[in-house]
Amino acid sequence: MPAKDVYHNVVRTALEKDGWLITDDPFKLKCGTKDLYIDLGAQKLIAAEKGQQKIAVEIKSFLSPSPVTDLENALGQFILYYDILEEQGSDRILYLAIPQRTYTEIFTEPIGKILLKKNRLRLLIFDQKQEGIVQWIP
Amino acid sequence: MPAKDVYHNVVRTALEKDGWLITDDPFKLKCGTKDLYIDLGAQKLIAAEKGQQKIAVEIKSFLSPSPVTDLENALGQFILYYDILEEQGSDRILYLAIPQRTYTEIFTEPIGKILLKKNRLRLLIFDQKQEGIVQWIP
Repeated sequence: MPAKDVYHNVVRTALEKDGWLITDDPFKLKCGTKDLYIDLGAQKLIAAEKGQQKIAVEIKSFLSPSPVTDLENALGQFILYYDILEEQGSDRILYLAIPQRTYTEIFTEPIGKILLKKNRLRLLIFDQKQEGIVQWIP
Repeated sequence: MPAKDVYHNVVRTALEKDGWLITDDPFKLKCGTKDLYIDLGAQKLIAAEKGQQKIAVEIKSFLSPSPVTDLENALGQFILYYDILEEQGSDRILYLAIPQRTYTEIFTEPIGKILLKKNRLRLLIFDQKQEGIVQWIP
């Protein structure tokens, strides 16, 4: 299993504060002979008659010296997981969890805006100091 | 500028043997304040009346201990470049150049097949010993 992201427990706590039940840590995904691990699986009761909402969350701290490389790596991981979940008929919605600083640095700039415009990513923006969720961009 | 891939010159030679004129090494892409560099830009005369075909080629050797991580990183880079080229109205077709060994190890397995089925990538498969192009998967 890969090493946990530096903000793993921050995001876990933020989701719990928001009423999510962590069901998988990590969430294992099998594809042929390959095992992949998404950081967290969680679920939440939306309304009794609507049942559970299920998510999978991949956490990226964007702490390397190159935010563009971090963006490329996060994007590739997200799309691979997304395609495998879809191929397997999963009802789990995938989110990329990023700190608020990264949202400002990357996703308010043209390079990140292009990806949001093309609906390449779903974002969960968190505040690492407050350990809380700031915004969902579905 | 990023370091050149270990197979940079192999792919350059393979393209030249196939009748391509290398026009950019690297091919620079500007997006807002960020500069990105795709490994090669090339063009070829298709037929006098049809004009030039233009490509951009990103080369990935897949030599890290984790081929899945290599795949994720290559995929993210490809999609980011693809989206920027499209956004800027470029007529350049983007390819990911990979060695034949990687095609066999990754793209004949479910994890790579899913990506090809969803048309996430265009591949240029090369033989690093012969320094030749084996196959284009558009």
